[in-house]
Amino acid sequence: MARQPVVTLLTDFGTSDPYVAAMKGVLLSRCPRARIVDISHDIPAHNVLAGAVVLAEASLHFPPGTLHVVVVDPGVGTDRRILAAQCGEQLYLLPDNGVITMVAEAAPIEALVVVRNTDLVGGASMTFHGRDVFAPLAAELLNGRPLEQLGPQPDSYRQLEVPVPVRSGEAVVGQVIYVDQFGNLVSNITWQDVETIWRDPATVRVSCLGRDLGSLQGTYGFAPRGELLALVNSMGRIEVAVNRGRACDVLDAGVGTEVRLVQS
Amino acid sequence: MARQPVVTLLTDFGTSDPYVAAMKGVLLSRCPRARIVDISHDIPAHNVLAGAVVLAEASLHFPPGTLHVVVVDPGVGTDRRILAAQCGEQLYLLPDNGVITMVAEAAPIEALVVVRNTDLVGGASMTFHGRDVFAPLAAELLNGRPLEQLGPQPDSYRQLEVPVPVRSGEAVVGQVIYVDQFGNLVSNITWQDVETIWRDPATVRVSCLGRDLGSLQGTYGFAPRGELLALVNSMGRIEVAVNRGRACDVLDAGVGTEVRLVQS
Amino acid sequence: MARQPVVTLLTDFGTSDPYVAAMKGVLLSRCPRARIVDISHDIPAHNVLAGAVVLAEASLHFPPGTLHVVVVDPGVGTDRRILAAQCGEQLYLLPDNGVITMVAEAAPIEALVVVRNTDLVGGASMTFHGRDVFAPLAAELLNGRPLEQLGPQPDSYRQLEVPVPVRSGEAVVGQVIYVDQFGNLVSNITWQDVETIWRDPATVRVSCLGRDLGSLQGTYGFAPRGELLALVNSMGRIEVAVNRGRACDVLDAGVGTEVRLVQS
Repeated sequence: MARQPVVTLLTDFGTSDPYVAAMKGVLLSRCPRARIVDISHDIPAHNVLAGAVVLAEASLHFPPGTLHVVVVDPGVGTDRRILAAQCGEQLYLLPDNGVITMVAEAAPIEALVVVRNTDLVGGASMTFHGRDVFAPLAAELLNGRPLEQLGPQPDSYRQLEVPVPVRSGEAVVGQVIYVDQFGNLVSNITWQDVETIWRDPATVRVSCLGRDLGSLQGTYGFAPRGELLALVNSMGRIEVAVNRGRACDVLDAGVGTEVRLVQS
Repeated sequence: MARQPVVTLLTDFGTSDPYVAAMKGVLLSRCPRARIVDISHDIPAHNVLAGAVVLAEASLHFPPGTLHVVVVDPGVGTDRRILAAQCGEQLYLLPDNGVITMVAEAAPIEALVVVRNTDLVGGASMTFHGRDVFAPLAAELLNGRPLEQLGPQPDSYRQLEVPVPVRSGEAVVGQVIYVDQFGNLVSNITWQDVETIWRDPATVRVSCLGRDLGSLQGTYGFAPRGELLALVNSMGRIEVAVNRGRACDVLDAGVGTEVRLVQS
Repeated sequence: MARQPVVTLLTDFGTSDPYVAAMKGVLLSRCPRARIVDISHDIPAHNVLAGAVVLAEASLHFPPGTLHVVVVDPGVGTDRRILAAQCGEQLYLLPDNGVITMVAEAAPIEALVVVRNTDLVGGASMTFHGRDVFAPLAAELLNGRPLEQLGPQPDSYRQLEVPVPVRSGEAVVGQVIYVDQFGNLVSNITWQDVETIWRDPATVRVSCLGRDLGSLQGTYGFAPRGELLALVNSMGRIEVAVNRGRACDVLDAGVGTEVRLVQS
């Protein structure tokens, strides 16, 4: 691995407690060369779906060989398994709770093991595997230990049952799967879906909770200030937004809200 | 540029979404030596004035040659321009929306260009220039490309119309331009203003919303716990505060609230 | 000190203001090799006890020789003193307001000085010692200046009066001293206390605000979802929690709430 290997952290620990820093201390103690980058520690507590979306959208932009450590892990200390994986050129260390789902959709799984070899983490607490299990294992990988040495290949791994858009007569009906900090409503309908279904995406109209949002706009600033619009966002997904406002508040909408596309 | 060039990030992206990490991934992919430092990602959404204050107060303390990338950018994807600038010994890459205003007041603009040369960022999304335009451009600069190669010098650039203090009879009337996380009310009146106007600043009295705050104190702890006071803060500005409390709540005040100085 | 010395920052500055970044700028200007790691900037404003808990739980995991700079400092600019200390193998630079208390309980104080030698920080503001005093002093230490050169050994230092658990008949009565972001209630009763008092910890029962929580569980997931439980947490402390929920909200409890242990 590179002279200064890059490791990212994605947790639901928040930033006011000592938990994230304890993980970083362990990482630096065991791999002083590591460059640590935070993806986020503000995933809503125990929200594996939000973690899965953020992981896929952030991790794939990192240099090849980056190790991404995910501790959104409501099952800590139970018999839930820990996975180490290579997807595309990125490495992952994460609980087997479905948080890998969207990465695995976006990049081929090149290698996957269930971590068995936890002898190196003797005396781990049962409630803080981030510090006592994930960080030491991550340091091993950063120090050059091959992924395959951590355990055997599993028969399967857990995937989230993320809803898929459905055809309904002339319409495609999807739903919001993520709300970002700007209040933008990110749906499960991708631009690829739109292009596959309709010959002329320019004629597609979007609606949400009975509000007609018109055709897909290029960017937020093309709608009047405070007005609703729909666009293809930077994740390649259909998104409902308000120019300089919060669509989730304007529409009183959230994860699960229906988003409809029809050809006009 | 230095062997390990320093780049800072200042955005209104918040820290729960994948956006900041995606920018960092692109930066590290294109300039593996870069040292990334967060200024803040918690600028209130679309609040260019707050971004301008934070940028000026933070950036000028960094080592010469540091590149500061600012993405407080409500006009993303529209025809708003992107600027690259050298102010004093610091480098800046930011939208031309006025966020440079207070840096330009504090340090001379040594160089300024409008970014035209965006060929290196083909396929950019229209909604996430932080990842697709600013980060690749920043990597170019960090890798040693001279600022001047990014585009031509503009005739002008946008500046925020920040209110200035005014004389009103015997008084100087300013207003709050920033409220910090402690609830301190930072005004547009500087210590320099005070020294210019009055021979003996020790005799100056401050009032806010009809409350007499007395003369300028040295520090918070010189007022009784829970009491209002005024002082010259670490930005060199007149600030209204409460010792161990929140002036913005005690006074129900915020950006735009009048702050008055008179000689007693 | 190491070629790339590690320095951590722990403050109550929050992350939306320029204050943390200004400190980092000064640090990097005076010690370009420094590796800066955030412990937290989200300690509740002026909450020295919370700072003390977080400092102890995070700092002791870092590599030997790491310097931990703490600016939870409501007395900034008054005559409160600044301490530099070595506890165990870690170095600390912090206000003498008790924030060292829990570190000093966990690791022996190997060296302790009151900072007198502040000639290197001429022109410091009275309200932002983080930037103008702590950061320059930290850079001195990171650049190899021995701690002992910063000032003389004090006769004493301030310690927080943290409540200790008390025996009450058959029971041990402690109280909550920290509430984490998951809403977990961390008490002042340690696993060591439990082992010292009772021969068979498996028979100990925990109660809080009249609610019987049963015996100590191994981890959160061993209780039904949404149910209260008690466990020994990763700090080695008795903690009251809710599996995938917030104990502080379920019990309407906080710092100071009684936690009782009895043998069943």
